[in-house]
Amino acid sequence: MRKEKNVDDRTKARTRTVSWKDPVTSVEAARKLSGLEHLRRIRDGMTPNPPIAELLGFSLTKVELGEAVFEFDPAEYHYNPVGTVHGGVAATLLDSAMTCAVQTTCPAGTLCTTLEFKINFVRPIVEKTGHLRAEAKLIHGGSRIATAEARLVDGDGKIYAHATTTCLIFS
Amino acid sequence: MRKEKNVDDRTKARTRTVSWKDPVTSVEAARKLSGLEHLRRIRDGMTPNPPIAELLGFSLTKVELGEAVFEFDPAEYHYNPVGTVHGGVAATLLDSAMTCAVQTTCPAGTLCTTLEFKINFVRPIVEKTGHLRAEAKLIHGGSRIATAEARLVDGDGKIYAHATTTCLIFS
Amino acid sequence: MRKEKNVDDRTKARTRTVSWKDPVTSVEAARKLSGLEHLRRIRDGMTPNPPIAELLGFSLTKVELGEAVFEFDPAEYHYNPVGTVHGGVAATLLDSAMTCAVQTTCPAGTLCTTLEFKINFVRPIVEKTGHLRAEAKLIHGGSRIATAEARLVDGDGKIYAHATTTCLIFS
Amino acid sequence: MRKEKNVDDRTKARTRTVSWKDPVTSVEAARKLSGLEHLRRIRDGMTPNPPIAELLGFSLTKVELGEAVFEFDPAEYHYNPVGTVHGGVAATLLDSAMTCAVQTTCPAGTLCTTLEFKINFVRPIVEKTGHLRAEAKLIHGGSRIATAEARLVDGDGKIYAHATTTCLIFS
Repeated sequence: MRKEKNVDDRTKARTRTVSWKDPVTSVEAARKLSGLEHLRRIRDGMTPNPPIAELLGFSLTKVELGEAVFEFDPAEYHYNPVGTVHGGVAATLLDSAMTCAVQTTCPAGTLCTTLEFKINFVRPIVEKTGHLRAEAKLIHGGSRIATAEARLVDGDGKIYAHATTTCLIFS
Repeated sequence: MRKEKNVDDRTKARTRTVSWKDPVTSVEAARKLSGLEHLRRIRDGMTPNPPIAELLGFSLTKVELGEAVFEFDPAEYHYNPVGTVHGGVAATLLDSAMTCAVQTTCPAGTLCTTLEFKINFVRPIVEKTGHLRAEAKLIHGGSRIATAEARLVDGDGKIYAHATTTCLIFS
Repeated sequence: MRKEKNVDDRTKARTRTVSWKDPVTSVEAARKLSGLEHLRRIRDGMTPNPPIAELLGFSLTKVELGEAVFEFDPAEYHYNPVGTVHGGVAATLLDSAMTCAVQTTCPAGTLCTTLEFKINFVRPIVEKTGHLRAEAKLIHGGSRIATAEARLVDGDGKIYAHATTTCLIFS
Repeated sequence: MRKEKNVDDRTKARTRTVSWKDPVTSVEAARKLSGLEHLRRIRDGMTPNPPIAELLGFSLTKVELGEAVFEFDPAEYHYNPVGTVHGGVAATLLDSAMTCAVQTTCPAGTLCTTLEFKINFVRPIVEKTGHLRAEAKLIHGGSRIATAEARLVDGDGKIYAHATTTCLIFS
């Protein structure tokens, strides 16, 4: 899965093609299932990955009550103009993980939406940083409002970014 | 620039291919120029767009001292599993705009890095929302620390998301 | 209103006595009035200042639809262990102003509660900084969720801290 | 330490008198000691509590490398106009705890200042909520930038508010 690193950076092909499934299928599935069931189906490939996950190259790898983990491999196509992975990519992963951690607590017939999140960047991320995990946990689960936190870590547990969120739960 | 909307959503092709230039070129350019000059060259196409901007389909359209604007057209490839543009896309645009607003104040030989940002989502974004602008302004410009704010708005000035950031400036 | 500054700091009396009215009176008033009317009564002294405002020495001086201003004079009793006004004091003022800016939009029979706020400190505040204003404005006013922003400024408009908030509105 | 609750709320005396020591003493002490030593002296009463801690009635009860705890008893003098403890009080406690958690990692000759913090309020706090602890831990400790998180909890570990912060460390 990890790319070769010894290719000449100045001459390698710089193109990416992605494809995705109609997201409406997933939206309809979401309405009939509890959050936990819906997310497990995405994790297991029974409901297609959303377009943004295909585009940025990340996937949901763990779903438990109050917990969710997304993973990705930093790549040049994530880069900002200063030669590191754009903060928005880390934000997308952490936001996904936090919202899903909240969603695991939502019964069928309810939806959750992200009101806000806040993210700190504590180390730069580059292609050779290697595989990263966005690990999220519920902090407070209320009937209308829930909060969660997440950390973007490498295999050694080193933190690259961390975040918190506030979500609204409604029928 | 805007895509046809009357295609059948269930059968249309769902694939996206992007290409980008070696980001090292841009990084080297950044070192020799002031932030304002560097960003103007990106805006004018003299320095290539960073990979993430090609991937997500956004571009820098305005650069003034203490100000920056990025624009994009929301598309299905930005969608999350609930059928709206992923919050991480809005975050990427607003983060870009805020960091660039700070960068316009950085003399040659200094760099700025985003320590953190915080984003609020106040309206859902879908493909038919149409063209959006992420408009950022410097709030406080210090020698070591700067803060900025940004809003994601449509052509009528309606707000979809807003954010603030803290950046570190260093030699 | 401003204190004498030429007293010897090492020998001056360091004591503060405050008194306040039963806050229940204010709470009952809040239930029957619109947010705008309720806050105007506090501004005009017809409803007593809340205890925290007496304790920290701040007061509501402006209330308009979507706007609120609180003011205070930084004093030694606000100091933290490094000899400046504690960030929590600026936070209390900005939080008050932002929540009130939202509350001005709430009809009678609804209440608003602060879900979260985020504050940046951009300049230290000391006693001789002098009179400061926490000026807040509504950013987005929805039926359930509202957001606002505020800045702590001196008479010249110089910014000392700035913040944003998310509030929940309910019946 | 806990006050009698069966007094008639409508007739009880509503006055508070506090006194504090010249904060300059503490500031001078801070310059010569490591953050850990300085804070231990405050915890042990060898360096006086800062004025704000006397005013709001809170104290530092635990200091370890990368950790700090402040405690207080919610009281009517902390109340906002809706009859609960003002969010700014929780913010002051959490900010104090987080900044001190960072400060424990600062060698003598360095200072740390809070760039920003973000706080979520997840349960209302009233006088009868009883004793609360603001427990903070370092998340990331860099040479220039550090981040920390904190939770305001009761004796059963129930969370009332939680926060994160970004601090700047300098010589």
